[in-house]
Amino acid sequence: MRPVLLIWLWLGGLAIACPSQTAAQSQEVIAVRDYRSTHEREIVVELIDFLRLPNVTANLGDIRRNAAALVEMMERRGIETRLLETGGPPYVYGELGVLGAERTILFYAHYDGQPVDSSRWQGHMPFDPVLRDGALESGAKIVDLPASGEFDPDFRLYARSASDDKSPILAVMAALDALRAAGLRPGANLKFIFEGDEEAGSPNLGRVVREHGDLLTADLVLAADGPSDPSGLPTLYFGARGIVSLQVTVYGPLRPLHSGHYGNWAPNPAMRLAQLLATLKDPASGRVLVEGFYDDVIPLSEFERAAIEAAPNDDREQMFALAIAEPEAEGSRLMLINQPSLNVRGLRSAWVGDEARTIVPDLAVADIDLRLVKDIDPKTQIDRVIAHIEKQGYHVVWNEPDTETRRGHARLAYVQTADGYPAFRTSMDLPISRALIEAVEHHTGRSTVKLPTLGGSVPLYQFTDVLGVPTVGIPIVNYDNNQHSPNENLRLGNLWSGIEVLASAMLLH
Amino acid sequence: MRPVLLIWLWLGGLAIACPSQTAAQSQEVIAVRDYRSTHEREIVVELIDFLRLPNVTANLGDIRRNAAALVEMMERRGIETRLLETGGPPYVYGELGVLGAERTILFYAHYDGQPVDSSRWQGHMPFDPVLRDGALESGAKIVDLPASGEFDPDFRLYARSASDDKSPILAVMAALDALRAAGLRPGANLKFIFEGDEEAGSPNLGRVVREHGDLLTADLVLAADGPSDPSGLPTLYFGARGIVSLQVTVYGPLRPLHSGHYGNWAPNPAMRLAQLLATLKDPASGRVLVEGFYDDVIPLSEFERAAIEAAPNDDREQMFALAIAEPEAEGSRLMLINQPSLNVRGLRSAWVGDEARTIVPDLAVADIDLRLVKDIDPKTQIDRVIAHIEKQGYHVVWNEPDTETRRGHARLAYVQTADGYPAFRTSMDLPISRALIEAVEHHTGRSTVKLPTLGGSVPLYQFTDVLGVPTVGIPIVNYDNNQHSPNENLRLGNLWSGIEVLASAMLLH
Repeated sequence: MRPVLLIWLWLGGLAIACPSQTAAQSQEVIAVRDYRSTHEREIVVELIDFLRLPNVTANLGDIRRNAAALVEMMERRGIETRLLETGGPPYVYGELGVLGAERTILFYAHYDGQPVDSSRWQGHMPFDPVLRDGALESGAKIVDLPASGEFDPDFRLYARSASDDKSPILAVMAALDALRAAGLRPGANLKFIFEGDEEAGSPNLGRVVREHGDLLTADLVLAADGPSDPSGLPTLYFGARGIVSLQVTVYGPLRPLHSGHYGNWAPNPAMRLAQLLATLKDPASGRVLVEGFYDDVIPLSEFERAAIEAAPNDDREQMFALAIAEPEAEGSRLMLINQPSLNVRGLRSAWVGDEARTIVPDLAVADIDLRLVKDIDPKTQIDRVIAHIEKQGYHVVWNEPDTETRRGHARLAYVQTADGYPAFRTSMDLPISRALIEAVEHHTGRSTVKLPTLGGSVPLYQFTDVLGVPTVGIPIVNYDNNQHSPNENLRLGNLWSGIEVLASAMLLH
Repeated sequence: MRPVLLIWLWLGGLAIACPSQTAAQSQEVIAVRDYRSTHEREIVVELIDFLRLPNVTANLGDIRRNAAALVEMMERRGIETRLLETGGPPYVYGELGVLGAERTILFYAHYDGQPVDSSRWQGHMPFDPVLRDGALESGAKIVDLPASGEFDPDFRLYARSASDDKSPILAVMAALDALRAAGLRPGANLKFIFEGDEEAGSPNLGRVVREHGDLLTADLVLAADGPSDPSGLPTLYFGARGIVSLQVTVYGPLRPLHSGHYGNWAPNPAMRLAQLLATLKDPASGRVLVEGFYDDVIPLSEFERAAIEAAPNDDREQMFALAIAEPEAEGSRLMLINQPSLNVRGLRSAWVGDEARTIVPDLAVADIDLRLVKDIDPKTQIDRVIAHIEKQGYHVVWNEPDTETRRGHARLAYVQTADGYPAFRTSMDLPISRALIEAVEHHTGRSTVKLPTLGGSVPLYQFTDVLGVPTVGIPIVNYDNNQHSPNENLRLGNLWSGIEVLASAMLLH
């Protein structure tokens, strides 16, 4: 049952009927751009003020100050706002009704940020934003804010959450301001949900979605998070991979043994682990050799395949920058991450380098993450990997084995798994998906990069699977933003174009 | 050319001609035992005083105090003593001529000890020796030294170097005292070389052997170091494996990458390393698959094979204690370590456990040690492993690769090797070997455990290969002595029997 949306009177004027479309962009977007170019300093200052509020997820006092600032920013724009409490960081919820609109768009973003190591930020503290005349890596210097006039779009703002994920929130606000100033109204009712717990893995999102389903229901969720395509084209991702992880420990002798006196008599867990891991993947094709690993993959539609084919391919540049001679599997393309994956993210056994000791280690550990695509159940995928390990002759246990258990099994694997979550994918072929693509391409006058699945994981399945609302990612920030790292930054040009892209999406009707 | 040995007058009496042999042990050994049983407290107190001197190899001041104490202990026994300086810890050299003796035995031991972590020693500091009424692991308590009478042979003395390697030095001294008190003289001239640098890998031994070859030459080197057989039988090892080690680093992207956005496109060095290591060894047979790895192995003689067959087999007990369900290779025996080995002693890539991050690591490292048997050249063996790595498609470099090199090679391995040294092996069939076995078995009245090769490595090839002197290990301490670890200890019964074994060897003529 569709709950009633409180209709807020849209305060802007009703001018500009039937705007004529230019070859490049719509009149509406031109109006948005005009507004922005005369308000750049104002927009940047509002963002800087927001970035000055420390927002590390774990510091609840800081997070509440951010939430309060956000409420103030939203209410100033006529958005009816409330906090959804979780016991931890609150969700900031808002509504803006548009008279006559039939559809409702829910914007999702997050206002918390990753922890900071101030010692590794160059030239300033992470919550003391600075403007640079380019990218730090290219030697850009800190500059004063221009007193007036337009900013160079290649200038960058450096601060924690400059990209992830405060600037998308500011872009949403600026897009609203620009539409209003131009006397334009959004094509859909707008809702907003801003999370303060995302960098902790969104532990409360499921509960909030279930408890507040009436508030959060919509025709479309637009998630303003993540980097946009390096080409600079507007980017839409219609899904993201899920994730689940496991740690595998295999055992040698009860304690490390002298490798001379015991080596090659006592079983070596580091070698055993290597042999076990080697069975997981074909070295040439990169294909995971776990039975059933690819069984549940839903094939892409023709439209989705065509969208991928049309996406810009900068693999050569990335390979050069990352010093990768060849991708893992011959012929694979970076953007085509529509498959489940198995990644060894860490290995440890005894010591290496200066700390190496001439021993047979007592155990060896591998940490593995599995990325999931639509319709692969996290638990089922883990079970397949476990079955594979068992097929290699291992006795698998779920608790740290005691001495007796170690005596009883020549090949013993202790498996720990972490809670994961499934992928989401919204079909590009849905009318609402097509309408979104059409709105963004029509208004911006540019083709879009459309990804059926983002490689990374975001727990937006809560919206698609729990609420049944189609969900699409609409990232705007520069891909080289040092997300989660020191010297996080936002290229101003991305903020400018992001405002236009988000305004275009709001014009969907 | 055999240098002239300064003949020292043996001060003891010349009594007990033609001792009649008992079924069990010789009259000489009975006399040694009698001496010991009436001097136990004196022997233990002298050892305790020696153990009170901190002897961590790196602390040269401490080492010199130990050397001075050793000189004093030796001179008190009529041994002409001098220091052989190296710039670092000095070697303490001594001679004791025996009128009429034709052969010369050089005793080797070391007086330095491993570093200590005092916080992990239980109940006392590592250089504050204590007596316990048994093994700490069995809950034994600290007890006072008995004022008089015999000590329980199961009592243990706890201190750094209690076993490794000060008590063998004391046992040599006590054996001399016992022989002298009984009016017996050694059957051979005696020389002594006590090293202060062994735990640092004997960096100066080669130079000392070359520079002082005239002093050090002998008919037999007896190395009093290492644990004796758990059976309690007198143990002789006629060789020890050599060692050489290498570190292999393989590469992924220039920096760790998000495993979602880049996973299974960017090559994963942890998986690559696992696949590479897995090619090195057959999981079922434990056989190293490197071409030529076993080519230079010299077969054992019939006598040596028989000696191994006759050695006690406590593999089941060891497997139980170490919680090993099966040895690495089916049917292998612990004591039969006469083969070259390949041991992965450490693995590292990115992070595991609580520190795990969802990344594709930038590199992965394996530390490997190779044990060598007689006539395998360390460099040749390393070269074979390198050739194997190259055969797996890797480009091998010897310096840390720069970005350009990483761009140019899909499979790139950076190999670092540490200086190693070859094995030594003295034939058990030599007349001097047979004479030693005969002397020990005759006098102690017990069969000996004779190992053609000790699993561990000691750089005694300097004596065999540089000086051409047959070298045999004559270990006396309990095998469960926590060597190199906290709570190092000596079982007194091993010291008692060790005195008899060493006296027996001195009676070789």
